[in-house]
Amino acid sequence: MAWDVFSFIGTAAFAISGAIIAMEEEYDIFGVYILGMVTAFGGGAVRNLLIGVPVSVLWDQEFLFIVATVLITVIFFFSKYLLSHWNRWGSYFDAVGLAAFAIQGAMLAMRLEMSLYAVMVAAVLTGAGGGVIRDLLAGRKPLVFKENIYAIWAVIAGLIVGLDVFHGDIALYALLVLTASLRILSVFFHWKLPRKNIEI
Amino acid sequence: MAWDVFSFIGTAAFAISGAIIAMEEEYDIFGVYILGMVTAFGGGAVRNLLIGVPVSVLWDQEFLFIVATVLITVIFFFSKYLLSHWNRWGSYFDAVGLAAFAIQGAMLAMRLEMSLYAVMVAAVLTGAGGGVIRDLLAGRKPLVFKENIYAIWAVIAGLIVGLDVFHGDIALYALLVLTASLRILSVFFHWKLPRKNIEI
Amino acid sequence: MAWDVFSFIGTAAFAISGAIIAMEEEYDIFGVYILGMVTAFGGGAVRNLLIGVPVSVLWDQEFLFIVATVLITVIFFFSKYLLSHWNRWGSYFDAVGLAAFAIQGAMLAMRLEMSLYAVMVAAVLTGAGGGVIRDLLAGRKPLVFKENIYAIWAVIAGLIVGLDVFHGDIALYALLVLTASLRILSVFFHWKLPRKNIEI
Repeated sequence: MAWDVFSFIGTAAFAISGAIIAMEEEYDIFGVYILGMVTAFGGGAVRNLLIGVPVSVLWDQEFLFIVATVLITVIFFFSKYLLSHWNRWGSYFDAVGLAAFAIQGAMLAMRLEMSLYAVMVAAVLTGAGGGVIRDLLAGRKPLVFKENIYAIWAVIAGLIVGLDVFHGDIALYALLVLTASLRILSVFFHWKLPRKNIEI
Repeated sequence: MAWDVFSFIGTAAFAISGAIIAMEEEYDIFGVYILGMVTAFGGGAVRNLLIGVPVSVLWDQEFLFIVATVLITVIFFFSKYLLSHWNRWGSYFDAVGLAAFAIQGAMLAMRLEMSLYAVMVAAVLTGAGGGVIRDLLAGRKPLVFKENIYAIWAVIAGLIVGLDVFHGDIALYALLVLTASLRILSVFFHWKLPRKNIEI
Repeated sequence: MAWDVFSFIGTAAFAISGAIIAMEEEYDIFGVYILGMVTAFGGGAVRNLLIGVPVSVLWDQEFLFIVATVLITVIFFFSKYLLSHWNRWGSYFDAVGLAAFAIQGAMLAMRLEMSLYAVMVAAVLTGAGGGVIRDLLAGRKPLVFKENIYAIWAVIAGLIVGLDVFHGDIALYALLVLTASLRILSVFFHWKLPRKNIEI
């Protein structure tokens, strides 16, 4: 059950984030659908490929395809009313998608009895993968490499799922809210990790 | 039979389009081969991955490898005579490749008895996939997201194949000519789909 | 045995090259780890995908994950002492990775009894693949398409392995040194392959 909820939230949030970025880049309506779809389903496809689940199980998610299609349509036609006056919607939907898919990816890796390390990698691939593909296709620097803290929240969510300390669905939903909030706060307050300049 | 013809036309057209774009970007001779090969075979690889056919069946296409190699060689050494005075060859070969591979991808999905939706996705992935990889590697904005109508023609071709209204090879060849022509006309007359600006 | 040595050298060299490029792009510490890991393991993943080995065998390389993690950490924290006063470390480590992985990829394709052509493609994909993914994620033009001779050395190494003229590990190590040296000399002396300008 929780699995389906996380899939739903992650797919919906990333479909919207992909559609918003496509509109920011002035893609036409079909480009908006493609980028929304690729963002919504790309992270899961990359994760499946890397953890050895057939990528084609993608096609069993008919309900999610419909959800993504409807949401992209709504965003495209009502963007004026839904998105005006605020330029952070893209990042915020991305944050929710990151958190939901990180937890979902980690749950899948746990079910396959992978190592703790692999659970964390599955979390970050599923959470960040769709956004990386979205940003590459939009000709942008991937959000995961931008200045505010991003993927580490997915890793931490994966670690918590992997350690199996949270039992029951409620705890996982709390983890979702926490992870998404930490990412949103990172954007809002410009939290950064250390970096090194090398002079060249 | 029609399947082989579409594979041949698509591979040839995309190999040439990749080689042309590599020369426009001033890649060296080996870069021209790589980009030509990636464009010719990339779309099919992505489609196979996503619809669950082993990607390695790629290697059974020896004849197509030879065709692509010969064509890239010819384009590289005779570009002066073949391409001068006209800067649209790249787009036009791309249009033929888009149409041929869209129909071929849709035919494959039909043979695997996938849903109509999946047939359309297979058409657009096979038709547009190689070009997207080509443009990413060349550091360009993917053609599929540029202003003139592009991928929707692949989707429509996929829909027509998927509805199974066209019977016999002749009808499929007519669809190829029609799809390629519509794309070329889109470039020529700057046909565009609607888009939304969102102010940010 | 030689196989493990090549895997070790290639992984180590690419992990370092990815970390260096991430620091040149001013990525934060987590971005440095991600780019190092993707560069170290990306080429092998692409090769496995294309030659039909499950991508998930990636996970059996625990020792190499640890090696890459340790090296990226060392590079990040001691970059000031290790990298200063010289801006070519990135290219040089990349050259060693290119050579080691080209030979390793060719050896794998030989073991699978693939055709000579496929052995050469496996060499270039494994050798150059990780670097291409690294450069795309860093928003750079892939090294493989830049002006000095690059991927052709991987192809030649693949050809030599594929012709099976070198027997024994010593010969393969000599091939590694030779291939890496030829790439480094290409950077140093600006060796180039012919290219064509097409006027557009």
